[in-house]
Amino acid sequence: MAELLVFGSIAYDCIETPIAKEDYILGGSASYAALAASYFAPVKMAGIVGCDFKDSDISRLKARNIDVSGLEHSQKPTFFWRGKYHDNFNSRDTLDVQLNAFEGYSPILADSYKNAKYVLLGNISPEHQSKVLSEIASPKFVVLDTMDLWINTALEPLKNLIKRVNLLIVNDSEAKALAQERNIIRAGEKLLQLGAESVIIKTGEYGAMLFHKEGFFVIPAFPVVELHDPTGAGDSFVGALTGYLAGKDSCDFTSLKQAMVYGAATASLTVESFSCYKLEENGFDEVQRRADYIKKISQL
Amino acid sequence: MAELLVFGSIAYDCIETPIAKEDYILGGSASYAALAASYFAPVKMAGIVGCDFKDSDISRLKARNIDVSGLEHSQKPTFFWRGKYHDNFNSRDTLDVQLNAFEGYSPILADSYKNAKYVLLGNISPEHQSKVLSEIASPKFVVLDTMDLWINTALEPLKNLIKRVNLLIVNDSEAKALAQERNIIRAGEKLLQLGAESVIIKTGEYGAMLFHKEGFFVIPAFPVVELHDPTGAGDSFVGALTGYLAGKDSCDFTSLKQAMVYGAATASLTVESFSCYKLEENGFDEVQRRADYIKKISQL
Repeated sequence: MAELLVFGSIAYDCIETPIAKEDYILGGSASYAALAASYFAPVKMAGIVGCDFKDSDISRLKARNIDVSGLEHSQKPTFFWRGKYHDNFNSRDTLDVQLNAFEGYSPILADSYKNAKYVLLGNISPEHQSKVLSEIASPKFVVLDTMDLWINTALEPLKNLIKRVNLLIVNDSEAKALAQERNIIRAGEKLLQLGAESVIIKTGEYGAMLFHKEGFFVIPAFPVVELHDPTGAGDSFVGALTGYLAGKDSCDFTSLKQAMVYGAATASLTVESFSCYKLEENGFDEVQRRADYIKKISQL
Repeated sequence: MAELLVFGSIAYDCIETPIAKEDYILGGSASYAALAASYFAPVKMAGIVGCDFKDSDISRLKARNIDVSGLEHSQKPTFFWRGKYHDNFNSRDTLDVQLNAFEGYSPILADSYKNAKYVLLGNISPEHQSKVLSEIASPKFVVLDTMDLWINTALEPLKNLIKRVNLLIVNDSEAKALAQERNIIRAGEKLLQLGAESVIIKTGEYGAMLFHKEGFFVIPAFPVVELHDPTGAGDSFVGALTGYLAGKDSCDFTSLKQAMVYGAATASLTVESFSCYKLEENGFDEVQRRADYIKKISQL
């Protein structure tokens, strides 16, 4: 078992969905990914929180044995996002963003984090991801998550960073935008040419596709009927996936395929509640049950 | 091995896609489905052709050992459809429809077709499908395909017909419309309540989902990079699937799962050319190769 460094955004979110609304809940790519990964491997969580960051949220992370000793603390408030999902859950509007702690932020990695072998660069600007990656002594497997915002506003830094990672993970619309290609299979093949060893394209309710030098692989999503809040689904997927690899200390094609199953299982729990509430309530047994079910519905 | 009766529309299509155009090619649900099914089981093809129906197309069907002795012949021209696909291939406009032979058509099934055990009611009006089904003595397994047109214009006849079949097959948007449900999993579950034993929802480039009393199952699509003309993809899928079941003379959950793989493999060949040209050129070996590949990319 190897340690996993999770870096990314840490946020307070106010989220309105067609069925419910909740204010000031723990969010951000690093929060979702660290909580998801914590079921599989020891996690060190990096990023910046604000002066309003609640002790109860620190306790919540510690309760999952997440090492928060290297978290940075700002005198400004925590990054804030307010969003509203449309009727079909497939699109959302950002109603308010307050950069707060992110303003002028340049991450500094704690010394105790620099020997991590598995590294997840969760969604945040490529500049921040790049700086953190540069501070890690000798990473074995680096996973890079990103979003449309950075494809549109920081394409060159993003492309430079992709060359330095082992696995790039994006959703289907991001893949098509980044590859400038409408066919999803061609998009994945073109993304491989950007320099990462492997690429995963998440396809939402349909599952995920892996493009790897040893082959192509597809898994279905866990069939969710009680969608509550899609926020953090992708972060949970990549968190659990990378946590699984660190936990096994293996990153070959076979391990990646298995890891995708656990990513999908964990993400399905995230979207059935706000934040990671349901994941934390149900724990690993339910993740395993859902991973087994994904295998059952996809294996002949 | 059991015989399969394929009934549905027979058409001449003029199709324009973003990359090519072809006039007066053999189309219609029964044509695609019969050609696809012919690689797996003996096929009897029912439906009506017009006075302009080419001998070469009769020969083409006969070359695949398809029994066309029960085809009905009209003195009017063959049903005609002209369509144009948009840039992304995901939507199309109907530019012209000429009912021709379909005007006032009431199908009469040839006596030699009435003992079929496996029956595919390809896409055509529910009234036509219902009349043909009523003429079959003791069907063992009946598959019903339909489309948004009939959901919008013939909902009650369609619902009555669904109660009489073993497998209903629709695509994702049709499933959501018919179930009046946005979540695809819930839509599938609601469709099961309409009375068919099982429901398949086709999800295009993502694959297909089976809802069955013994469980849920998902297969990915064969990864197509050279999309040429999506027309007939669904008809080929259900044709090959039903052909596989007839060929094995088995329609249990395990056989249905295997049949989906062959359906997806065959449909991928259809969309790589106009009509069924590529399927007919490449033959069963390529279908088998693609079925094996679908297993490879989905099995852990």
